[in-house]
Amino acid sequence: MVPETRFAPLPAFARQAEQSVTFPRGFVASGVAAGLKRSGRKDVGLLCSQVPCVSAATFTGNAAAAAPVRLTRETGACGRLRAVVVNSGNANACTGKSGLGDAARMRLLAADALRVPVEEVAVASTGVIGERLPMHVVEQGIAAGAAALSRHGGPDFAQAIRTTDKLEKQGALDVELHGGTVRLGLAAKGSGMISPNMATMLCFVTSDAIVPASAWAGMLRAAVAASFNCITVDGQESTNDTVIGFANGASGVALDDADLGDLADVLRAACVALAVQMVADGEGSTKTVRLHVSGAHDAHEAEAVARAVANSPLVKTAFYGRDPNWGRIVQAVGQAVGRLRPGPLTADIAYEDVTVLSGGHEAELNDGQRERLTAIMHASEIALDVGLNGPGASATIYFSDLTHDYVTLNAEYTT
Amino acid sequence: MVPETRFAPLPAFARQAEQSVTFPRGFVASGVAAGLKRSGRKDVGLLCSQVPCVSAATFTGNAAAAAPVRLTRETGACGRLRAVVVNSGNANACTGKSGLGDAARMRLLAADALRVPVEEVAVASTGVIGERLPMHVVEQGIAAGAAALSRHGGPDFAQAIRTTDKLEKQGALDVELHGGTVRLGLAAKGSGMISPNMATMLCFVTSDAIVPASAWAGMLRAAVAASFNCITVDGQESTNDTVIGFANGASGVALDDADLGDLADVLRAACVALAVQMVADGEGSTKTVRLHVSGAHDAHEAEAVARAVANSPLVKTAFYGRDPNWGRIVQAVGQAVGRLRPGPLTADIAYEDVTVLSGGHEAELNDGQRERLTAIMHASEIALDVGLNGPGASATIYFSDLTHDYVTLNAEYTT
Repeated sequence: MVPETRFAPLPAFARQAEQSVTFPRGFVASGVAAGLKRSGRKDVGLLCSQVPCVSAATFTGNAAAAAPVRLTRETGACGRLRAVVVNSGNANACTGKSGLGDAARMRLLAADALRVPVEEVAVASTGVIGERLPMHVVEQGIAAGAAALSRHGGPDFAQAIRTTDKLEKQGALDVELHGGTVRLGLAAKGSGMISPNMATMLCFVTSDAIVPASAWAGMLRAAVAASFNCITVDGQESTNDTVIGFANGASGVALDDADLGDLADVLRAACVALAVQMVADGEGSTKTVRLHVSGAHDAHEAEAVARAVANSPLVKTAFYGRDPNWGRIVQAVGQAVGRLRPGPLTADIAYEDVTVLSGGHEAELNDGQRERLTAIMHASEIALDVGLNGPGASATIYFSDLTHDYVTLNAEYTT
Repeated sequence: MVPETRFAPLPAFARQAEQSVTFPRGFVASGVAAGLKRSGRKDVGLLCSQVPCVSAATFTGNAAAAAPVRLTRETGACGRLRAVVVNSGNANACTGKSGLGDAARMRLLAADALRVPVEEVAVASTGVIGERLPMHVVEQGIAAGAAALSRHGGPDFAQAIRTTDKLEKQGALDVELHGGTVRLGLAAKGSGMISPNMATMLCFVTSDAIVPASAWAGMLRAAVAASFNCITVDGQESTNDTVIGFANGASGVALDDADLGDLADVLRAACVALAVQMVADGEGSTKTVRLHVSGAHDAHEAEAVARAVANSPLVKTAFYGRDPNWGRIVQAVGQAVGRLRPGPLTADIAYEDVTVLSGGHEAELNDGQRERLTAIMHASEIALDVGLNGPGASATIYFSDLTHDYVTLNAEYTT
């Protein structure tokens, strides 16, 4: 099921369905425990369309991009990928030329097993940085995964790509369009090293709609821009982030422009729902805050302010402490604005429908508003609005709080 | 005593002395408990030169600069200030026009009590954001402070400017120059909302050297650039940061250019020592790391990389966990570099004298090196070097780890 959040209601013409990436017609998948994870959990996943696909892919902007990212981005046919091989437990990052060779061998093994051209297979890895992949383990995993491929393998695949995730991030939808019903499937992972411009996150989207390659690329790009590029747990952009969408046309349903627009809307809402789930599952997270910044001078300022607030450890610990500490928000806003332009700042700040700062002045709250504010700070999803009283550019970002569990998880987790 | 750190050894011609800002001749100071702090600790400080001064001042770059910063910066005679009135417990930030009026009244009251022209008095505040100052309390404090002014009031003044500081940040030095002996005194505060480009930090420097105004401004600017602008606890730049240096010439000692250069060296070393003490005293801090980034394409890239590493919660929690987790360092470096230029990254990383990454490849460590690395990670001061293998620009930053105590302090501290 696509996770439910008030921040991304699904359109009425999209209905939740069982399963995930193998719900759309013509896709098979599997997930097996090859032995990369000490826990013995599933760690190698395969996903493949039984017919050729159009595809679109986006990757991390990190200059230390991992070997599988570099391989797929630089040598893959990113507009007509039809399969992906994924391992968890080892990121194959900072592994030099040997790591690139390992990623290429993963791809070759998967292409052979799936009987598809090598350039149509993507590779993705997630896990510990700086260690070589034990290739004999990976090789056994790919062989076992190929033998296990199934029309019902989506949930196994979704398990195989997870690392420290506690919450499920998969789902499937029936999308009822004028031209007929098409299907969407999604499987994602991500809970730490999460930041705008991708994150330690992987997401694979499948659809059986007939979509022109350029339209599919456009709707995936727009969905990623509104979802995975707008979340932050700890401001850290991973070396391995990858989103790939496959559309194989197996539904036989042709779509007109209005239908394509509706499909794009559903895809965006589903990606936002998964992205919000990543924040909710952020390491140690107890709260998800949607911050909307408006009235900025330009888009750059709006995003800089949103990031500054969302990544401020003082703001994040205040949310953990359920403290509507708007002084820390003003501090972060002022720091970001101060780097961009001179002059004093007059901001508006509201937690949900309670305005606490108006034109730079503290708002007088009555007893009812104070009670309401206390209740808001106890919710698991909170909408925070910051107005800058400028011309009007805006930005939205979803972020988690900073908690004792984040420190515990990251001080004790050793490479 | 100026705090001792291996990161900033004092030149041999500078000798530790008792006291702080009133050690140089011709300065008086006081610190009193007016009642702004619930704890009953000292919270109003006065510092004044008995003769006219040259002065230099630097302030926060935050667009939401607090009222005392705006007042002093915009209406003060910043090249010939001779006194400052400081309160702790309330930042007088985000208080609008009323707050500006309160800061102006503080200045007027201090100028009257000290019998100096109003434009020669600076105002500084530190504490909670968003609350009006209780002016009757401040007024009583300034009156009591004026009555308590003394040649030995430096330590009381230093106490009055502190908030959550646990470690002392004051000191005094005899500086033996060719022209004769001059004296330096310093009092500072800062432990949270600390970031490059100033911090929630205040620092007041006094000297009885005869120094031309432009030379004094230059050496203070250089000292701040190498110290308070190079530290980060939590990446948050405060609304109230202020550094003011007063040189009143009361020693009667004239200095030649070589002496001025030596004085500048001592001033810089003392400011670095105080800045490192702020990091050591950073909220919840257990470690101080000096990060040196070299081989960058330009100064902008060097600083961006240094900040990205120093403010990464993943890097900071790894230091807390004594884990030489270089993968998280590469991730932060790659994120910063990825925003600036294309192409893969090859970095060198060393903890003290142990190189763990060389040209992007993990170094093989022998048993002795592994033991040495473990010992390094248990030290309270650690030198971390990141080489980018580029043309050669460099940057240095001092940062603290991220600990459970940071979360506890900031989730439970309420405005």
